[in-house]
Amino acid sequence: MRLATLHNARPDGELVVVSADGQRYLSASGLTLIGAIADWDAALPALEKLAGLLEQGKGGVLDAARIVAPMPRSWQWLDGSAFAQHGELMQIAFHLPPVDTDRPLMYQGVSDKFYSATDDIPLPSEADGIDFEGEFGVIVDAVPMGVSAEEAASHIKLLVQINDWSLRAIAPVEMKTGFGWVQAKPPCSMAPFAVTPDELGEDWRDGRICADLAVTWNGAPFGLVKGDQMGFSFPELVAHAARSRDLVAGTIIGSGTVSNAEYATRGSACISERRAIEMIADGKPSTSFMHFGDRVQMEARTAQGTTPFGAIDQIVTRA
Amino acid sequence: MRLATLHNARPDGELVVVSADGQRYLSASGLTLIGAIADWDAALPALEKLAGLLEQGKGGVLDAARIVAPMPRSWQWLDGSAFAQHGELMQIAFHLPPVDTDRPLMYQGVSDKFYSATDDIPLPSEADGIDFEGEFGVIVDAVPMGVSAEEAASHIKLLVQINDWSLRAIAPVEMKTGFGWVQAKPPCSMAPFAVTPDELGEDWRDGRICADLAVTWNGAPFGLVKGDQMGFSFPELVAHAARSRDLVAGTIIGSGTVSNAEYATRGSACISERRAIEMIADGKPSTSFMHFGDRVQMEARTAQGTTPFGAIDQIVTRA
Repeated sequence: MRLATLHNARPDGELVVVSADGQRYLSASGLTLIGAIADWDAALPALEKLAGLLEQGKGGVLDAARIVAPMPRSWQWLDGSAFAQHGELMQIAFHLPPVDTDRPLMYQGVSDKFYSATDDIPLPSEADGIDFEGEFGVIVDAVPMGVSAEEAASHIKLLVQINDWSLRAIAPVEMKTGFGWVQAKPPCSMAPFAVTPDELGEDWRDGRICADLAVTWNGAPFGLVKGDQMGFSFPELVAHAARSRDLVAGTIIGSGTVSNAEYATRGSACISERRAIEMIADGKPSTSFMHFGDRVQMEARTAQGTTPFGAIDQIVTRA
Repeated sequence: MRLATLHNARPDGELVVVSADGQRYLSASGLTLIGAIADWDAALPALEKLAGLLEQGKGGVLDAARIVAPMPRSWQWLDGSAFAQHGELMQIAFHLPPVDTDRPLMYQGVSDKFYSATDDIPLPSEADGIDFEGEFGVIVDAVPMGVSAEEAASHIKLLVQINDWSLRAIAPVEMKTGFGWVQAKPPCSMAPFAVTPDELGEDWRDGRICADLAVTWNGAPFGLVKGDQMGFSFPELVAHAARSRDLVAGTIIGSGTVSNAEYATRGSACISERRAIEMIADGKPSTSFMHFGDRVQMEARTAQGTTPFGAIDQIVTRA
């Protein structure tokens, strides 16, 4: 099942179910996604009924211009960094010592705003080192403190695709304090559709979104990376997050930048990684970070050739 | 003006105005604090009218058992660490090198739940090094990205007192990753009353809450620290937080643990600091962290002898 949220007068928008081809929709009559996830088992039958009607050809024409982030705001966004290859390259990019830990890496980021897939992204300065980060995420219902990874799997209700905007000139400065990122992590963007795990078929396995993620920067292919090399699964990330807190329904947990050991052929999902690869090869980076007016596109593709989350396609602007 | 939130069937509770002696209240008829702060100028006249009626002796008897946190949940909690003395002692406690920065220290913490002043605090393990942190905070209305510290001052609408629960066995482990804290920072507690800055009289000056904070652990005085030694003011912390994001109305910004250079006579507002002081004096800490069943009390006292925020008084329990 594919879900989207349409813009209306309320901050959480209008939850709709979307047809398999992404062209038609039916409204979940007054529901919001953050409201539905709070009592998912109760909301699911009505949503599945709408999905059935869409399969029969019913529904209105979906106006892409009305689509906002599937969850335009959430109480909690916890972003992991679960791809070991990304971590290794970022240590090179940031001139930082290796992170000596066998635990998942995770920080809490701004969650009161998620940009839509097509919003312009206003940022204060090109000198901050504006970068995109293509990643995947999951949305959970209420998760009790102390949940095991095995139990956590059943709390993952929806999968999403995210662009985690990052300011690379600030990131290592904040890391060195040990307090993590505030300024280096502006609000993220979300691809148009949140989907139930079954939509990914075989590409949802081992608690990982194993689809390809195609990233294009100013029209040029930048990366075609695969989500299967997460060092920790999403259930493990959820359990890590819930070690000393209940997770509120609607908590979004991110994978961190999708990254592969085969970066030489697959490319990357963020500029900073490419710069690190250039530093390894040439001793210095040659690719600049983003300029105002730059465009980034991201789209996940499953083994069956579907694009379940739709596409992120947006431009960075001066705030 | 003093505000509180009373428990009702909704997660954000019922906003009430409280009399100067904390004994009586009048309901803000359907308002919540997170709702009111979103349009504070519109909400203020009605709240001030209720405050006027309370001054005339009107209002019902306030049932302390119904008081929850002034804002039981918020979209964003950004906690600073603005007391230099605290930072120095924590580096000793955590065996970490000095943080080499002239910037404010800040992390984003869990905000979907703030415990009330009297809630039991369920935590998973004594081995995590359970500690309290007495601190102050401010609640802002909507703050635009890029705000200056001068402009930020006008966005500070309410002052609060917070107990930032911390797990000290995990904190340095998470700091070393550079990602900041997730597991080391369970939800915080809030003292019963949020107050407008004028309630503090001369103790709200230079953008700082200059009141004393009295901390008692299992009935024994632990610290009587003063809030005036913040290295950065609250407006500076707000501006720091808004460098690359708009701050949503209702964002809470914390001071970090109140700490004074005169710790030998004033004591501390967290156990970890006392342990660091013991390490300086004796080469090793002698005070243990909290045990299940331990009680902590915290109360701010102004120069005029008032206790504007009321008291935190709670017990740690096994989750």
